[in-house]
Amino acid sequence: MVGRVRTGIPGMDEVLHGGIPERNVVLLSGGPGTGKTIFSQQFLWGGIQNGEPGIYVALEEHPLQVRGNMAGFGWDVRKYEEEGLFAMVDAFTAGVGKSREYERYIVHDLTDIKEFIDVLRTAIKDIGAKRVVIDSVTTLYINKPAMARSVVMQLKRVLAGLGVTGILVSQISAGERGFGGPGVEHGVDGIIRLDLDEIDGKLKRSLIVWKMRGTSHSMRRHPFEITDRGIVVYPDRVLMRKTVVELD
Amino acid sequence: MVGRVRTGIPGMDEVLHGGIPERNVVLLSGGPGTGKTIFSQQFLWGGIQNGEPGIYVALEEHPLQVRGNMAGFGWDVRKYEEEGLFAMVDAFTAGVGKSREYERYIVHDLTDIKEFIDVLRTAIKDIGAKRVVIDSVTTLYINKPAMARSVVMQLKRVLAGLGVTGILVSQISAGERGFGGPGVEHGVDGIIRLDLDEIDGKLKRSLIVWKMRGTSHSMRRHPFEITDRGIVVYPDRVLMRKTVVELD
Amino acid sequence: MVGRVRTGIPGMDEVLHGGIPERNVVLLSGGPGTGKTIFSQQFLWGGIQNGEPGIYVALEEHPLQVRGNMAGFGWDVRKYEEEGLFAMVDAFTAGVGKSREYERYIVHDLTDIKEFIDVLRTAIKDIGAKRVVIDSVTTLYINKPAMARSVVMQLKRVLAGLGVTGILVSQISAGERGFGGPGVEHGVDGIIRLDLDEIDGKLKRSLIVWKMRGTSHSMRRHPFEITDRGIVVYPDRVLMRKTVVELD
Amino acid sequence: MVGRVRTGIPGMDEVLHGGIPERNVVLLSGGPGTGKTIFSQQFLWGGIQNGEPGIYVALEEHPLQVRGNMAGFGWDVRKYEEEGLFAMVDAFTAGVGKSREYERYIVHDLTDIKEFIDVLRTAIKDIGAKRVVIDSVTTLYINKPAMARSVVMQLKRVLAGLGVTGILVSQISAGERGFGGPGVEHGVDGIIRLDLDEIDGKLKRSLIVWKMRGTSHSMRRHPFEITDRGIVVYPDRVLMRKTVVELD
Amino acid sequence: MVGRVRTGIPGMDEVLHGGIPERNVVLLSGGPGTGKTIFSQQFLWGGIQNGEPGIYVALEEHPLQVRGNMAGFGWDVRKYEEEGLFAMVDAFTAGVGKSREYERYIVHDLTDIKEFIDVLRTAIKDIGAKRVVIDSVTTLYINKPAMARSVVMQLKRVLAGLGVTGILVSQISAGERGFGGPGVEHGVDGIIRLDLDEIDGKLKRSLIVWKMRGTSHSMRRHPFEITDRGIVVYPDRVLMRKTVVELD
Amino acid sequence: MVGRVRTGIPGMDEVLHGGIPERNVVLLSGGPGTGKTIFSQQFLWGGIQNGEPGIYVALEEHPLQVRGNMAGFGWDVRKYEEEGLFAMVDAFTAGVGKSREYERYIVHDLTDIKEFIDVLRTAIKDIGAKRVVIDSVTTLYINKPAMARSVVMQLKRVLAGLGVTGILVSQISAGERGFGGPGVEHGVDGIIRLDLDEIDGKLKRSLIVWKMRGTSHSMRRHPFEITDRGIVVYPDRVLMRKTVVELD
Repeated sequence: MVGRVRTGIPGMDEVLHGGIPERNVVLLSGGPGTGKTIFSQQFLWGGIQNGEPGIYVALEEHPLQVRGNMAGFGWDVRKYEEEGLFAMVDAFTAGVGKSREYERYIVHDLTDIKEFIDVLRTAIKDIGAKRVVIDSVTTLYINKPAMARSVVMQLKRVLAGLGVTGILVSQISAGERGFGGPGVEHGVDGIIRLDLDEIDGKLKRSLIVWKMRGTSHSMRRHPFEITDRGIVVYPDRVLMRKTVVELD
Repeated sequence: MVGRVRTGIPGMDEVLHGGIPERNVVLLSGGPGTGKTIFSQQFLWGGIQNGEPGIYVALEEHPLQVRGNMAGFGWDVRKYEEEGLFAMVDAFTAGVGKSREYERYIVHDLTDIKEFIDVLRTAIKDIGAKRVVIDSVTTLYINKPAMARSVVMQLKRVLAGLGVTGILVSQISAGERGFGGPGVEHGVDGIIRLDLDEIDGKLKRSLIVWKMRGTSHSMRRHPFEITDRGIVVYPDRVLMRKTVVELD
Repeated sequence: MVGRVRTGIPGMDEVLHGGIPERNVVLLSGGPGTGKTIFSQQFLWGGIQNGEPGIYVALEEHPLQVRGNMAGFGWDVRKYEEEGLFAMVDAFTAGVGKSREYERYIVHDLTDIKEFIDVLRTAIKDIGAKRVVIDSVTTLYINKPAMARSVVMQLKRVLAGLGVTGILVSQISAGERGFGGPGVEHGVDGIIRLDLDEIDGKLKRSLIVWKMRGTSHSMRRHPFEITDRGIVVYPDRVLMRKTVVELD
Repeated sequence: MVGRVRTGIPGMDEVLHGGIPERNVVLLSGGPGTGKTIFSQQFLWGGIQNGEPGIYVALEEHPLQVRGNMAGFGWDVRKYEEEGLFAMVDAFTAGVGKSREYERYIVHDLTDIKEFIDVLRTAIKDIGAKRVVIDSVTTLYINKPAMARSVVMQLKRVLAGLGVTGILVSQISAGERGFGGPGVEHGVDGIIRLDLDEIDGKLKRSLIVWKMRGTSHSMRRHPFEITDRGIVVYPDRVLMRKTVVELD
Repeated sequence: MVGRVRTGIPGMDEVLHGGIPERNVVLLSGGPGTGKTIFSQQFLWGGIQNGEPGIYVALEEHPLQVRGNMAGFGWDVRKYEEEGLFAMVDAFTAGVGKSREYERYIVHDLTDIKEFIDVLRTAIKDIGAKRVVIDSVTTLYINKPAMARSVVMQLKRVLAGLGVTGILVSQISAGERGFGGPGVEHGVDGIIRLDLDEIDGKLKRSLIVWKMRGTSHSMRRHPFEITDRGIVVYPDRVLMRKTVVELD
Repeated sequence: MVGRVRTGIPGMDEVLHGGIPERNVVLLSGGPGTGKTIFSQQFLWGGIQNGEPGIYVALEEHPLQVRGNMAGFGWDVRKYEEEGLFAMVDAFTAGVGKSREYERYIVHDLTDIKEFIDVLRTAIKDIGAKRVVIDSVTTLYINKPAMARSVVMQLKRVLAGLGVTGILVSQISAGERGFGGPGVEHGVDGIIRLDLDEIDGKLKRSLIVWKMRGTSHSMRRHPFEITDRGIVVYPDRVLMRKTVVELD
């Protein structure tokens, strides 16, 4: 029986029948504003509270802003960075031009997946990480879709090889179906999809676990909310999205 | 608790539960004729009335016409330009051929994002701007979509780094879904979408806040009107767009 | 208060709440057979009757045929060409091979937008034109869509700079949505869309003003007819297009 | 008042309110099996019976087979070829490899639109043709869609210049909307669309005149049949195609 | 009156009002699993039983497997190959690498349409073939769609020139509309479409004759079955496919 | 009468009217999370239990993880590898960078289909394999779709030539129709499609046999479940998927 990693997100572990199976690499897929980043940060915070070191690889925000955003939900990671329970990998400044290097773990060239993996591997070993979030993996192949499968495969291999449970954040367009392309969605151990839908003039949040290797899981679409303490999932409620036919 | 920037648009701050959180960079997305330019100019005028200096980066209209259009709504910015409460960046004439340089802040080459950012940064520092509108950001990558994410990321970094709250106007096609492409819509702190829909032979205006970092906000679609004094949003009303199936 | 240009099309000025605001450059968009050319010629004829000189830039038909077609509706422009109230720019023969040069204003190379603008500017100045129709602007970028925004921007600047009110005819495919592409539809001051729809086995004509800078306007879809005296719009009637789901 | 060319197709002239206006170049558009070739051949036969010489430009079938197919409907053109009331232009063998040259008018290189036009012009002048069918014009630009508008424009200019009324057969895919692409459908004087639809398990034929310069025409969709004497149109009946939502 | 080729498929000749007109080249179009190959082999077997020699050009299966598959339906062609009533052209092994050359008629290079036609012509002349099946013609232009029209035109010319009635099997994707592309579907004398549709959880087979030069034919969609003796068509029954709206 | 290969999946052989016909090469097609890998591994395990040696070609997972995953369902293959009833071909490490070579059968270069086939052929001969699974075949042509048909054809020829019954796993995107592209879906002897659909907020699994050469089979869509002992198919139940119209 494979062990479980508790997400620490209220209601989510019930949806997952106990948590994410250890060493699984899970695609967390959703459009803009669906809560992917909050979900993944809450997952890391849940690990810290449980004594499981975690790493956040920042590709979309400056590490300083990431820390600030997390603190806004009550998840102040700075203390845990000092204690070796949390680490930040700065893969953001590489994408927007060089800046002073405040961070300990820095990826300098996003086009070099080998450097990316080397930095990630070092960080994992340094703190003995059990959880890793890459937010987002999409940015690693945004302008070279033919590389998507290879990038995801290499990441998965490194993470699984080091005994880490990983979340790969996958950015998709609003209203896009699928989870990030065939090369990506078949390569991962699990897929969690976050949705934000306009129904009768109101925005509704929901999530569905599309696949999860090594465990059964809820086969239903569950509503969730984003509160000022993070995400709350309702495992006992089901959202039925109305059939909507839209302008193309 | 992060501070708020009051939009000054009647009804809009209620929709935003108090205004746009400071330093957020917000995508203002909509098709032709939806009122994006009016919304963004009214936002700057609201700042001026509040003593907060603002900058309008003109990419779609000649600065002279921008001033005229604003004056048509009662927003005469010329006095405030002299007082240092408002500044115009002319990134329009660069796109349509060189002309006599009347403007103080001019971008000469739109293909050079570095120059664009340098001029913008200078203008922000000169007047101590608190609000910036780039109308439209779409023009900066219209013929090079692979650059969209990078451009938005760099702008966001500069604006946030200088303590500015920004609106990036995103032009989308009539009937197009999404907000301007995946690289753009995931990179910003907030998304406000303006819509113009034909329903039973009548055109209806509405807006919806799709995401806004650092605040809760209305999760509903609100009707709005364009009057001769600018936009008025109805925070207590909800527009339910009918299900429409259209010729593809 | 900006002045108005009366279209001279029965019913249309009511739809526009008084006419097109002076110096506006308006996209007249529609599929094949929707009446774009007739609308734009009638607009010029309305100007002539009002003492406002006008120019028709012919890109789709030989100037001789244009004059004949107009005469068929009772709009015989030849007398007014002599009086300097009307001028034709021949940008048609350039596209189909050189011919004897009967016309006074001729564009020889459609790939050279500068020449096009020079000829147009000369014609405008020669007769002191107040109205210009370019039929169609689509042909100027039909095989180079990345140039569309730039072409429209340059035309708009020239026309507005010379105090002219302009109609740019935009050809779209039957059943196509939008108005001619994002670069085009965001750059203009107004959009009028003409439609021809098959509803229950019958063809129905209608138009809708999608945007018009500087004026309020009807927000409804109005039926119109093409008679042997030109277009008649019904400002008091609304056409509700049925929801139609079609073979893709 | 422009003269009319009687199609000679039972019921069709009523649909056209008297026939096709002289010198119009009409796009006859339809999917496979809709009857385009039969319609256009019947149009030429109608001319012969009326003493108006006609030319069939064969691009899809060998001229021998064209004559045979026509004879199958009772339209034996061989006698009229000798009398100078009918001529065939062989633009077919050029497309499938060289063969012995039985025909009087032969186009040797379909990629050379100038040669095509020269041969066509010669044939028109030789017999004083009043009607021309090009079956199909699509083949002239099948592998170079950017040339479509230019080809149609040149053909239209030649035909109109020689006083000929023309039918350009436009092949579209089954279920495709539109009439053959924007460059084509805006350039012609008229559009007649032939349709073959499966409705409740039965195939139904219908046609609609989408536009026709110089005349009013029925604005309805009319059923028609293909008999062993050619096409019969029912001008007093209307076909309402059911709303059909199909697998994409 | 043109002669008819009896298909030998129970019910099919009634659908065709007597069979396929002699020398017609018919596109047999359908998705995977629709029964195209069985239909075409049964057509050849019907010819053999009628004393009309036939040729099967194998592009999708090894000739040995083709013979085996046919024998599985009770159509053992080996005896008839010896008697000169049947011949196989091996155009399969060329596509998957060279093998020992067991077959009498072999196409070595599928990229060389001239060699293909030479081999086919030789085989036709050797046995005096009256029927030819090319299964599938799609493979001849699968990676060069711009060549599709030219390939079909050349094949049609050769087959018709030699007095042969031909079936060109056209492979389309599941759920795809049309019959194999505009260049193909307009060039042939007839189109028979085979369909396999999931309706309320059950797979249903049906066919429809979309066009057939030289004969009237059923204008309805007929159900058919694949039995262990081949295809049986029900000319007295009509299948009405339900309107289905599917995920795109 | 062709022999049958029993899948060993409860309920599946009833659906197949006795099992997969010997030597058939079957496409097992489905989106992410549909159970393709489990189905194919269970098929091999069923063979082992029946004394029929089988080979799993791993392209998506490391061979060690494949063994672990199978063991999780109670299918511990290690003993059978030693006994020569099971073999693993490692075509995974080639795709993600070289690693220590633990495996007996290794493909080093996925771009070299000849090497792939050589290794596969050797493994088949070594253990006298009767069943082969390639998971997934999609990876062999993911970045070169024009090669898909050729790759599938070569594989089919090798497998059939060696008397093997094969399953080719085909990865398609969530919501995609078809089975993996026209070149692939027409080339195989059978197609089994696995589906995972969200219906009223719940995920439902079902499968349908789209084609299977050499046998009749259920023409219905059957629900199935994934249990901790593998897949269970319900041959007596039918799933009717609701008509769903979705955001595009």
